[in-house]
Amino acid sequence: MTELPITARTRIHRLSERQAVERQTLMAILDEALIAHVAAVVDGVPVVLPFACARDGNALLLHGSTGAGLLRACAEAQPICVAVTHLDGLVVARSVFDNSMNYRSAVIFGIAQVLTGEDKEQALNRLVDHLLPGRTSEVRPSTAKELAATLVLRLPLDEVSVKIRAEPATTSPDDGENRRVWAGVLPIHQIAAAPVPTADVAELISVPRSVHAAARRFIANADASPADDQERP
Amino acid sequence: MTELPITARTRIHRLSERQAVERQTLMAILDEALIAHVAAVVDGVPVVLPFACARDGNALLLHGSTGAGLLRACAEAQPICVAVTHLDGLVVARSVFDNSMNYRSAVIFGIAQVLTGEDKEQALNRLVDHLLPGRTSEVRPSTAKELAATLVLRLPLDEVSVKIRAEPATTSPDDGENRRVWAGVLPIHQIAAAPVPTADVAELISVPRSVHAAARRFIANADASPADDQERP
Repeated sequence: MTELPITARTRIHRLSERQAVERQTLMAILDEALIAHVAAVVDGVPVVLPFACARDGNALLLHGSTGAGLLRACAEAQPICVAVTHLDGLVVARSVFDNSMNYRSAVIFGIAQVLTGEDKEQALNRLVDHLLPGRTSEVRPSTAKELAATLVLRLPLDEVSVKIRAEPATTSPDDGENRRVWAGVLPIHQIAAAPVPTADVAELISVPRSVHAAARRFIANADASPADDQERP
Repeated sequence: MTELPITARTRIHRLSERQAVERQTLMAILDEALIAHVAAVVDGVPVVLPFACARDGNALLLHGSTGAGLLRACAEAQPICVAVTHLDGLVVARSVFDNSMNYRSAVIFGIAQVLTGEDKEQALNRLVDHLLPGRTSEVRPSTAKELAATLVLRLPLDEVSVKIRAEPATTSPDDGENRRVWAGVLPIHQIAAAPVPTADVAELISVPRSVHAAARRFIANADASPADDQERP
């Protein structure tokens, strides 16, 4: 299945030309994501919190706060909604109204599974290796006690809407805008700075492969982003 | 009122030492934010979407999608929840379990007001000047037609929880971690790349003050972030 099925909930009505339906596009957005915003209904009221995330095949793994009743909502197999958003640029138009943002956004609807046993351990390893590629081979595995204190959710990617804006500033003809005013895009990227060792790391111990790999990923993402492509002659 | 009131919903139970109660801390988090994730309950199901945001006194202004029933929920004065999250670093620990993230997170509960008339126009200008400082003085004002097509929400900052992690990697004594393994933080920042003019900008027109000011803000934020501070001797 290479196209995302469009349901009543995932059909985008406003600026529908920005809806992307390629599953590959969704995968790229999720594979670049470090955090996702998870919303649930708790006592009739919406709650949204940030979670660490990693894609695992056709599902998104989520690891984060057990607070605010979100755990309870998930354990009771209630519907949740998860947003993954990459802000790629500020769009600078010649009118207040036409100012916008370039972004890639995925919104997932579904019911999450609370993972247990070996599934949980594997998912936790997948999360860590997503954030820090190869880190699980550099450190000891989780203990039973640690696993018991961990919550990992698995949300299938069955009902997802993807919306993308990757364009220059909009200029409508004859709408009174002053064409001598600069318009364009200010591209935004996430970057990694130099790694900072904890105080107890001996001087001879160098930054490991996993951290180099994580830092490289930010550079690769910035290189591949649509906003950056526009910059090149 | 310099402290945030703690309610049943805003009290953080898990890792409660990370709860911040200074109103000033909340303001700094919001003033650095470009987007917020807005959650509402629509037909009994949670929906979360990204919105552009700007703080205005003791409220957060939100501008974004009218889709997915969120507008309806807000117009009907239903409770919403808004999360603003800054990811400041990947925390690289000596065990899978202790890996973490450094972040600053604000979660706001409340009922949003749908702005109209002059309030709406002022709020839209405030949003634009937050993203691009001074931009409203460089371009023509909004037309009545444009304002009619715009949705701006105002959410009071009355019930907010703020959670911050700005620490090195956790190392518990005697938990089997190999101390010869590197541990630390990989700081993450948002940066702006060089502005990209649209095709119709004449060569003589230089990048305006508002865009320079927006770009400078990213640098200032990176300089002030806790993760970056650790880097300095």
